[in-house]
Amino acid sequence: MTQATYGALAPELETSQWLNTLEPLRLSGLKGKVIVIHVFQLLCPGCVSHGIPQASAIHELYADEEVQVIGLHTVFEHHDVMTVEALKAFAHEYRIRFPIAVDRPSTSGTTPVTMERYRMQGTPTLIVIDKKGRVRLNHFGRLSDMQVGNFIGGLLTEDQSARMSSEATDGPEPLDGMNCDEDGCLL
Amino acid sequence: MTQATYGALAPELETSQWLNTLEPLRLSGLKGKVIVIHVFQLLCPGCVSHGIPQASAIHELYADEEVQVIGLHTVFEHHDVMTVEALKAFAHEYRIRFPIAVDRPSTSGTTPVTMERYRMQGTPTLIVIDKKGRVRLNHFGRLSDMQVGNFIGGLLTEDQSARMSSEATDGPEPLDGMNCDEDGCLL
Amino acid sequence: MTQATYGALAPELETSQWLNTLEPLRLSGLKGKVIVIHVFQLLCPGCVSHGIPQASAIHELYADEEVQVIGLHTVFEHHDVMTVEALKAFAHEYRIRFPIAVDRPSTSGTTPVTMERYRMQGTPTLIVIDKKGRVRLNHFGRLSDMQVGNFIGGLLTEDQSARMSSEATDGPEPLDGMNCDEDGCLL
Amino acid sequence: MTQATYGALAPELETSQWLNTLEPLRLSGLKGKVIVIHVFQLLCPGCVSHGIPQASAIHELYADEEVQVIGLHTVFEHHDVMTVEALKAFAHEYRIRFPIAVDRPSTSGTTPVTMERYRMQGTPTLIVIDKKGRVRLNHFGRLSDMQVGNFIGGLLTEDQSARMSSEATDGPEPLDGMNCDEDGCLL
Repeated sequence: MTQATYGALAPELETSQWLNTLEPLRLSGLKGKVIVIHVFQLLCPGCVSHGIPQASAIHELYADEEVQVIGLHTVFEHHDVMTVEALKAFAHEYRIRFPIAVDRPSTSGTTPVTMERYRMQGTPTLIVIDKKGRVRLNHFGRLSDMQVGNFIGGLLTEDQSARMSSEATDGPEPLDGMNCDEDGCLL
Repeated sequence: MTQATYGALAPELETSQWLNTLEPLRLSGLKGKVIVIHVFQLLCPGCVSHGIPQASAIHELYADEEVQVIGLHTVFEHHDVMTVEALKAFAHEYRIRFPIAVDRPSTSGTTPVTMERYRMQGTPTLIVIDKKGRVRLNHFGRLSDMQVGNFIGGLLTEDQSARMSSEATDGPEPLDGMNCDEDGCLL
Repeated sequence: MTQATYGALAPELETSQWLNTLEPLRLSGLKGKVIVIHVFQLLCPGCVSHGIPQASAIHELYADEEVQVIGLHTVFEHHDVMTVEALKAFAHEYRIRFPIAVDRPSTSGTTPVTMERYRMQGTPTLIVIDKKGRVRLNHFGRLSDMQVGNFIGGLLTEDQSARMSSEATDGPEPLDGMNCDEDGCLL
Repeated sequence: MTQATYGALAPELETSQWLNTLEPLRLSGLKGKVIVIHVFQLLCPGCVSHGIPQASAIHELYADEEVQVIGLHTVFEHHDVMTVEALKAFAHEYRIRFPIAVDRPSTSGTTPVTMERYRMQGTPTLIVIDKKGRVRLNHFGRLSDMQVGNFIGGLLTEDQSARMSSEATDGPEPLDGMNCDEDGCLL
């Protein structure tokens, strides 16, 4: 069994199915990008209320060439109801746009293969892989948006000459009439 | 007048007073740190509801050796009521922990000196200065926590060998009894 | 088919199963209480993020003798995955405390029996029944907590001498040290 | 000194000034309406983040003929900076629409006259007066929107034949295309 040691090359995802992508993704084919894997179960409250919206925010904030977001459905309880069909309905109703992989069920136990391979503790788990394909974060539970942004921003900057974020320097539209609105006060 | 051109060396803050610090801070004395300046007015709704909590979150997330958060009170309207005394009461009641500078009033107009020097558009404005003292962000309006975290994380990683965030890899305490709580589901 | 005309006597729920209660509930047995029925599907995002927490808040705020909260699972899509077993897992993981009824599937169509009987438009729907057993609200979509509180408060007061809310007049614990905390400023 | 005993006739507000109204309001002139008084200080964090938005929500939800919202600025600390001029700037920038009264400063102490007369403990305080002019709630600290809605809804229903809320029974616009959006799932 490959262990997902911190800093080690990320083991491939062992999957039984993919949603929201024409072709299964392989981590080895994503070198040069930062990969963010949101590991969830569709009946996990913290995944639904916090993890999925955070993963969608990552997917929207970063350019596809920079960051690849992947959902990984790792069913380790309620196997009979968290089926692939249920996942498809869930992904449809929650309008998830990024690719979702179904973790391959174990032939011998309740924990699916990738989940065990990465020695995850539960869901939600956030796994972040750097541009060289190494596991740099394997975190069970919540992280704030600021923590996640900080982490990804750091990985994007590694091995790169000084980056000048252009989009972030654009200001909002000028306010009309009022000096202040709920966003700010205009000079 | 020095212009705060993007990437240029950050002009010093011109201040009339400081709160929450024994000594006035000088940007030139903070080389090696990323500097985050939250520019606000105490009667600016977006500053109070969004900017101040975000600045406090930055102050709490990052080590003091890495990131210096500074509040800058730039009064360009309602000068008679947003006095230094009002700012002191505000900072006390809102329990602001980071140093706050009062922008030096103009002798000729309504816009204070630093605000004009940095050509800011209004409040809230977020200014971020890199470890070499250059202005890298000068943004009027709201940025999400993820955007801000991403930006700071990038600047912290520049000119540095691969950084391995240790604190972020710690998981939450194990849940007792229930499989899932609002944070997550435990294996 | 009984129509759920506004102000008419509420038709009984036609159910195939109940969770979180030893005995099936009958509306006719709840006269004298205000009945709040949160109608949902477990894969309905607005039900999960807004409706369920609101129903739980109602359940916690009001005494059992005053208000009976009932969840009603009305599956009109994705029938194969929103099974009773899935509902049980959902109710467990989301820690729902109030009784939940499963709307009886139609023998001829996709819309379950109670949903059709009440002419509901979709989920979430909030149905409120007064102390005399009449339907007083049958609302599809979100209502704010203030709207819902206002509505229930009104129904509780009907046919009753002036009510003096005692619990709401209790103040919070005194603050120590600081004049103001995030809740308030103490004299 | 009149004491604001629970259920007693509400003593008049003693004010030095009014904002957002052409004429000073007198409680005795508002019989037949429920009166909601949000008592605040402009430098009180809990008032600004919770109380003011709640008071504005009340103002928007209820018809003017039913509920009169009044802000009452009771300065008991930082008197030198929470002046009437500061309050005017605050009310302007926060776009407060309902009438605001300035509590009359005490000639002998720091607590203003109405605040003492009502024996308030601090800010925010919510005072609710029934249609007959009696004090029914005098609460220091936060109440949830559901609690406040419940309380007002109860008072509106007193001394009135069964009320049929019409506005609350209107559903949202039908959703187009998707079965579910973040608000709900359409049949």
